[in-house]
Amino acid sequence: MSFEALWRELLPIGRHPETGGYRRFTYTPAELECREWFRRTAQARDLAVETDRNGNLWAWWGEPAPGSVVTGSHLDSVPDGGAYDGPLGVVSGFAAIDLLRERGFTPRRSIAVVAFAEEEGGRFGVACLGSRLLCGEISPDRARALTDPSGVTLAEAMASAGLDPERIGRDDTLLSRIGSYVELHIEQGRAQADLDAPIAVGTGIWPHGRWRLEFTGEANHAGTTRLDDRRDPMLTYANTVLAARKKARLAGALATVGRVVCEPNGTNAVPSRVLAWLDARAPSDEVLDRVVEEIERASAERAQRDGTGFVMRQESYSPAVQFDPALTDRIVRVLGGVPTLGTGAGHDAGVLAGHVPAAMLFVRNPTGVSHAPAEHATMADCAAGVNALATVLEALAQ
Amino acid sequence: MSFEALWRELLPIGRHPETGGYRRFTYTPAELECREWFRRTAQARDLAVETDRNGNLWAWWGEPAPGSVVTGSHLDSVPDGGAYDGPLGVVSGFAAIDLLRERGFTPRRSIAVVAFAEEEGGRFGVACLGSRLLCGEISPDRARALTDPSGVTLAEAMASAGLDPERIGRDDTLLSRIGSYVELHIEQGRAQADLDAPIAVGTGIWPHGRWRLEFTGEANHAGTTRLDDRRDPMLTYANTVLAARKKARLAGALATVGRVVCEPNGTNAVPSRVLAWLDARAPSDEVLDRVVEEIERASAERAQRDGTGFVMRQESYSPAVQFDPALTDRIVRVLGGVPTLGTGAGHDAGVLAGHVPAAMLFVRNPTGVSHAPAEHATMADCAAGVNALATVLEALAQ
Repeated sequence: MSFEALWRELLPIGRHPETGGYRRFTYTPAELECREWFRRTAQARDLAVETDRNGNLWAWWGEPAPGSVVTGSHLDSVPDGGAYDGPLGVVSGFAAIDLLRERGFTPRRSIAVVAFAEEEGGRFGVACLGSRLLCGEISPDRARALTDPSGVTLAEAMASAGLDPERIGRDDTLLSRIGSYVELHIEQGRAQADLDAPIAVGTGIWPHGRWRLEFTGEANHAGTTRLDDRRDPMLTYANTVLAARKKARLAGALATVGRVVCEPNGTNAVPSRVLAWLDARAPSDEVLDRVVEEIERASAERAQRDGTGFVMRQESYSPAVQFDPALTDRIVRVLGGVPTLGTGAGHDAGVLAGHVPAAMLFVRNPTGVSHAPAEHATMADCAAGVNALATVLEALAQ
Repeated sequence: MSFEALWRELLPIGRHPETGGYRRFTYTPAELECREWFRRTAQARDLAVETDRNGNLWAWWGEPAPGSVVTGSHLDSVPDGGAYDGPLGVVSGFAAIDLLRERGFTPRRSIAVVAFAEEEGGRFGVACLGSRLLCGEISPDRARALTDPSGVTLAEAMASAGLDPERIGRDDTLLSRIGSYVELHIEQGRAQADLDAPIAVGTGIWPHGRWRLEFTGEANHAGTTRLDDRRDPMLTYANTVLAARKKARLAGALATVGRVVCEPNGTNAVPSRVLAWLDARAPSDEVLDRVVEEIERASAERAQRDGTGFVMRQESYSPAVQFDPALTDRIVRVLGGVPTLGTGAGHDAGVLAGHVPAAMLFVRNPTGVSHAPAEHATMADCAAGVNALATVLEALAQ
C-alpha cells in the first residue's frame, strides 16, 4: 500500500469540520479511532500489535527482542493542530515496512512501529507523557492524578479505555528491547525549506523552559492620575516583551511572550497587575541561562524606573538533548550526506535519548507553520521521507 | 446633623465584605438602598423629594422654580470603587443645607440637592447616563436598549424599580429650573495634595477618548519558528504601550493602556492577535488629537517592521468642557482665592455645562487613589468642603 493511500485513511479522523484542525485528545473517541486504525494497519501487515502498560501502541515485525530497531511518533494532537505533527512518523513507519518488504528485505533485527500516548500533553498537560512513563521520567502516582480540563484523571481515562492505570510506570523489559529509536517528524520551522532539503537529520533538541512573570503596580484612575504618580505594570511588561526579543535575537536564541493576563483589565484603569509567561529556548543551556538572566535584569531595572514590582519564576525547564552521535552520523552517511538540524521543539525521541540511542529524521515544511491547520508537507517530500526511513531501518536492522 | 454622622449612615451600604470596595450598581438592591437613604435624609430635613423622569433624585429646599441653585453628585459606584467618588457631593449637599440653616440663612432662590443616576456607567456602560438623559444628550430609544452584563435592559431595570422607562428623555421643565449647578467631588489625583489645598475650584474637564487597537499576526510554534519568520503582534503591542506613554509625557497629556486581550494566549504560541484599548486625555482637543496621531503613526511604523497588521478605531470621544467662567470666578472670589484645577475625569457637571451654568469644587485626596477601595479624604477636609459649599450656595441663593 502506498504512503498516500495509508495517509488518506487516517486523515478524516478527529478533524474539526469548521476549523479544519485536529482534536485527537488522548483516550477520547477520535484518538481511540486512531488507535483502531493503528491496530487494523498492523494486522493487515501481519505485525503483532501490543498496547504497553503505559498506553503506547507497538506493531512488531519479528519477535520483540533486545536490539530491535524502533521507529514511530504519536497520533494525538494539540487543539486544532495540523495533520502531520505526529501521524506522519507513524504512517511513514508502516509505509517504510511496506517498502522494505517490496524490496525483498529480511531484517536480522526486529523492527517495530510505535505510537506514543499523549505526546502533545493536549489532554493532561504533560508533554511526552507516554514516553516519560515508559522511561520512568514521571512518577506513576503523579501521572495517575493528572486531570484534563473537565477534571477527569488519567487513571479514569485509561480505565474507561480498557487499560489498567495501576500498571503504569517504567518498563525495563520493553526499554531493553529498543536497540535504537529513529523518529520521523515534520519540521516545525522553515530551516529545511531555506536549505532546499526535503530530508534532514536531527542533532538534538534545544534546552527550553517557561517562566512566569509577575508585574505589580497600583490600580488607579486613567483620567486623573498624573503619569509621574503612576506605578503602571503594563509599562514594565511592555519593556520586557521588547527586551526578551532583543536579547534572544542577539544570542541566536528564541524568546516568546504569547500569554498575558491584565488586572483589572479596564480601559480607564491603570492596571494593578500584569501576569505573563516567557517561553525561551537556545542552542545550549549556557546560552539559554544567559539570555533569561539578561531578560530578568532588563525587566528588574525597568521595574525600578516604573516603581513597579517584578518577580520571575521558572515553571519548567528541559535541558539540552543530544541525539546519539554515532547513530546520527551513521544515518547521515547511509542517506548520502543530508543536512543536520537542531530543533526547539520537544519530542518523544528527546525523552528516549536519555535511555537508548535515539535519532530523528525531519521532513521539509514549506511554510514552517505547525500546531495549526495550515501545517503541510508535499506528498513528494513525504515519499522521500518514507524512502529515507526505509533506508535507515534497513541499515540498522540488517 | 454633622457631616460625619450623615456620612456614616451611608458607609455600610453596598460595601463588599472582602474587597472593602463599593458595588452600588444602578437599580440593584445596594443602590436602591442608597436611594432610600436619600429620601429619608431629605424628608428628615423637610426637603421635598422627587425622582425625575430619568431616575435622578432631587431634594428641594423651597419651591422648584427657575433660577434655583443646584448641588449634588451621584450615589452609584464603579466595581469595587471607593466611598467618596459621588457620595461625598451628595452628603456634602445635605450637610451644607444643615449648616446654612444653623447659620439662620433664608435662601432667596430655591436650593436643591441632586443624585444623578448611573454616573459611572457601572451597570449599563454609558457614563453620566442620568444627566445625559436629562439634557437630551442620548436618545431615549438607545438608552432604553442599553444592557447590563446579564442582558437586563435599562428599560427592564427601571420598570422593576417602579419607574416608567417610556417617560425618559430631555426634561426642559427641570432644566429650566437650574439657575446654576455646583458639584462637589473628591479630587481623583494628587494635584491639591501637592498644592497643600484642601479645596480647589474646577475650571474644566479635559477632552478624552477611547481607541480600540487591533494588532494581527500569525499564530506559530514558539519553539521552532525563527524570529525572522515571525509576525508577532505582541511586539507591536508592546511598542505601542511604550510609545503612548512617551508621546503623552512629552505633550503634557495622559495615555493609558489598561486593557489587553491576547489570542490564542498560549505560553508556547506566537499570538495571532492582540486587542487593546487606549485611553487618552489632554488639556485641549488640539493636543489630544496630536498625541493620538503620534501614537498611531509610531504603531503603524512598528507594525511595518514587525510584519503585523495594525488598525486603530475611535470608540468614544468627549470634547473639552469649560465650566462657566463667570460662575467659576465668582466661586473663587467668595472662597477667598482657592486654586483652580482642570481634571481628566468626566462628571455630571461636564454634561450639564453644555446647558446651564455649571462649576465644580474639589476636596483634597491625599494619596490620589480613586476608583479603588483605598480612595480617601480626611474628615477635616470633608468638613472644609461642606463649609466651602455652604458659602457658595449662600452666595448664589441670596
